[in-house]
Amino acid sequence: MITGKNYIGNQLKASGTTTHKTVNPKLNVQNPTDFYQATLEEVNEAVELADKAFKVYRKVSGEKRAEFLNAIADEILALDTELTDMYMLESGLPEGRAQGERGRTIGQLRAFADLVAEDQWRNVTIDQAIPDRQPLPKSDLRKTSIPLGPVVVFAASNFPLAFSTAGGDTASALASGCPVIVKSHAMHSGTGELVASAIIKAAEKTGMPNGVFSNITGSGRVVGSALVKHPKVKAVGFTGSIAGGRALYNLGTQRDEPIPVFAEMGSINPVVVMPNVIKNKSAETATTYAGSITVGTGQFCTNPGLLLTIAGEDTDAFVKDLAEKTTAIASQCMLHPNIKEGFVSNAEIVTSQPGVEVVGKIEGDLQANFAPSTICAVSGAEFLANPKMHTEVFGPFSLVVKAKDQEELLAVIDGLEGQLTGTVLAEKEDFDALPAVTDALQAKVGRIIFNGVPTGVEVCESMTHGGPYPASSDSRFTAVGLGAIKRWVRPFSFQDWPTELLPSELK
Amino acid sequence: MITGKNYIGNQLKASGTTTHKTVNPKLNVQNPTDFYQATLEEVNEAVELADKAFKVYRKVSGEKRAEFLNAIADEILALDTELTDMYMLESGLPEGRAQGERGRTIGQLRAFADLVAEDQWRNVTIDQAIPDRQPLPKSDLRKTSIPLGPVVVFAASNFPLAFSTAGGDTASALASGCPVIVKSHAMHSGTGELVASAIIKAAEKTGMPNGVFSNITGSGRVVGSALVKHPKVKAVGFTGSIAGGRALYNLGTQRDEPIPVFAEMGSINPVVVMPNVIKNKSAETATTYAGSITVGTGQFCTNPGLLLTIAGEDTDAFVKDLAEKTTAIASQCMLHPNIKEGFVSNAEIVTSQPGVEVVGKIEGDLQANFAPSTICAVSGAEFLANPKMHTEVFGPFSLVVKAKDQEELLAVIDGLEGQLTGTVLAEKEDFDALPAVTDALQAKVGRIIFNGVPTGVEVCESMTHGGPYPASSDSRFTAVGLGAIKRWVRPFSFQDWPTELLPSELK
Repeated sequence: MITGKNYIGNQLKASGTTTHKTVNPKLNVQNPTDFYQATLEEVNEAVELADKAFKVYRKVSGEKRAEFLNAIADEILALDTELTDMYMLESGLPEGRAQGERGRTIGQLRAFADLVAEDQWRNVTIDQAIPDRQPLPKSDLRKTSIPLGPVVVFAASNFPLAFSTAGGDTASALASGCPVIVKSHAMHSGTGELVASAIIKAAEKTGMPNGVFSNITGSGRVVGSALVKHPKVKAVGFTGSIAGGRALYNLGTQRDEPIPVFAEMGSINPVVVMPNVIKNKSAETATTYAGSITVGTGQFCTNPGLLLTIAGEDTDAFVKDLAEKTTAIASQCMLHPNIKEGFVSNAEIVTSQPGVEVVGKIEGDLQANFAPSTICAVSGAEFLANPKMHTEVFGPFSLVVKAKDQEELLAVIDGLEGQLTGTVLAEKEDFDALPAVTDALQAKVGRIIFNGVPTGVEVCESMTHGGPYPASSDSRFTAVGLGAIKRWVRPFSFQDWPTELLPSELK
Repeated sequence: MITGKNYIGNQLKASGTTTHKTVNPKLNVQNPTDFYQATLEEVNEAVELADKAFKVYRKVSGEKRAEFLNAIADEILALDTELTDMYMLESGLPEGRAQGERGRTIGQLRAFADLVAEDQWRNVTIDQAIPDRQPLPKSDLRKTSIPLGPVVVFAASNFPLAFSTAGGDTASALASGCPVIVKSHAMHSGTGELVASAIIKAAEKTGMPNGVFSNITGSGRVVGSALVKHPKVKAVGFTGSIAGGRALYNLGTQRDEPIPVFAEMGSINPVVVMPNVIKNKSAETATTYAGSITVGTGQFCTNPGLLLTIAGEDTDAFVKDLAEKTTAIASQCMLHPNIKEGFVSNAEIVTSQPGVEVVGKIEGDLQANFAPSTICAVSGAEFLANPKMHTEVFGPFSLVVKAKDQEELLAVIDGLEGQLTGTVLAEKEDFDALPAVTDALQAKVGRIIFNGVPTGVEVCESMTHGGPYPASSDSRFTAVGLGAIKRWVRPFSFQDWPTELLPSELK
């Protein structure tokens, strides 16, 4: 079924000669298919088709767009084990995760379908005319939201389904009325092509204009840069590394016509463990966090990479327990040899800093691409003095900072970069000290969690998945949850417009 | 009363040596006060104070912030004729405009006060927990909006009150919980200082933290650049030229930590005059538009600089009538010698293009800084071939494009850059042709007006004052109306947070 070609609108094309293969990380071998990098002509054709499709698609009713999104969900389900097998083959992730992530992907598509089936999401406001107002009459003004135009979505390495081809960015952009061109992730191009085929089928079945979706392949930066720089592309969504996201942000903002580039990038997700939790709940907290640190081989944006504690004997015991429990969980496969390499080299950066103690690490010969889960500890003073310890180690890794007191703990938070999440673990006896901690965290993160774990991102109206830079390139938006649609629309006002010519939501 | 100094928080300071004077454009003489450009140390002090103030101010209740905004309005009114006299002295604008603009400024402050007095504007959503959900329980999630941090506002040349020191940007940012540092406009530094003194008084009377507002003076780019590049500045608002706005946007987006720069820049505000209007309502349309083109000496962002018509004898007669009526309105003073110079040189760019006919222009010796209102015409084909005709001529100037047919008229719209507004003048008989025109305009503008004029921007919930680049640097926001507050806030989620620790709007 897999062709290795690009979907330029509804046509499979591969006129180029540059190819790449995906890898089966568990066996550490290449998968057979050659994926053809799109040529610049193909990239251009996809964007031109999207621009043309936009003129039609932006006026397709919310109800019809909902049909399209639901049809995508149906077609993804129809791919059945062909899709989940390919997913496992290309990601090394287990079957339960494949099914769970597919469920989330379907759920997102249906949630956005429900959102746009009625035009309630457009933030409509109506100010009626006051013809006899003094000194000047007031006009009738009605505001709605309209889509920006063709959106380029960069698939994420760590969510081959839920944040890739038909993931949250695509679902929210299509829901808003924007055509989407996906830059497929080179690590799971086969999964990408299967999902793309589902979207194309759904578009055809529900009568959407050709060009409403394209799927572009390529393993380097050539194709991605060409997409972001194309004058007819009007917005970009990205999930991945700070370096990658910043490069795309720079391209987008330095165009003749700058465009919004929403990049959801790194985060080490500080977790503040208050003293009474360590006193009363040390063992269960260590168990819960060993699970959160290793879930999905630690390959989540919200992985708790930094635990902030107050130093003491109890804390030392907690850290030891956490390290034992974390390393007792069997090593798991990472997504790709490159991801494993990044894990090892970033862990090395942190663990080689003066004062950093490796409290626990899975030792011995591991299978290729399997991760040695690691727990380290460092004093507050040493952490404060050394920003290299802020390095995100993408994988099952966490650094425990032992501050000498609450003041130093607050200084540690103040010194952090922007983050997606902050978590506070506290007992009633800690509540007096919480406002200062919360204030410090609020300045740095997009979501705070009480007595829970940052992993697990609910897709709902009240979710914020984004935060001050570099957690995301624009903290004013979220990448997850229904609010994600706001990234792709702009307000638009009709003044004294004849009722019969108004869009339905403004009548 | 005027000192020429900077307000660094509530202290008047002027440790630098670079100075400038404002100009009385009517008399074409300099006003006496020396205004001291802030030193880089003073700039830094203002930002550090703002950052410190933010920690307090962001938690000040909506009710208290409303008090502060209303007190600013009161203190501005208390300045009475001292303020309006200074305004007229520095802008050449008449007393009625001074009073009208002061009224608008007051109205904006009070509208934002009303908005934030209750916490209804924060887009609060609540998703309650579902502890028994399968396969995983759902957490309690509550979302609100929180302020970004210190905001730098660049005062506008053409609205010394309503878009300057205590104008829409300042009012919306202070309302949101962000401290504001105003870069005063060098053309009306005296007006700026008076208004700044009102804000400082209001802050003191209502117990706001020192640093919640500063007023920085300077006539070049040094001070503005230093402000935008300061790491503790978190957002920027600007109203002015494309060159100025883009330069600040580039500075803001190229920082280590990029920040949002909302720049409201140029616009030539296309007006489509449909054939039956020219047939049935030629004379009254010419009268209305002569007024709209010359109001405020044409120095409005929404000035109708481009009229799009279908060629014909009736149209020629309309253009002639429009030119006569426009030039029959007495020439008025412009804001500053620089503005007059810009008007003359940009008008020269357009009128010197091949095919452009000057249909009417105020001739003869005018007082210094008085504008020679001008109406030109050109064929659709020539306009399409020559982007230099898109040049914004800031002042009482309009170019009428005579397209050979509707198709060419649509092509003219398709070829335009982004605009703040588009206007359609139509009779019932034109309605069949309107959807195509509206579609074309909608892709280019932020607000469309039916059978009216683009000048006059209502401050209300449903206003959009912004549009595709270069009308603004981010079309997803508006600079006017209550929605302007959204530029300065970000969504923030609380997960499973104890009720007693939630902010009041989320309880």
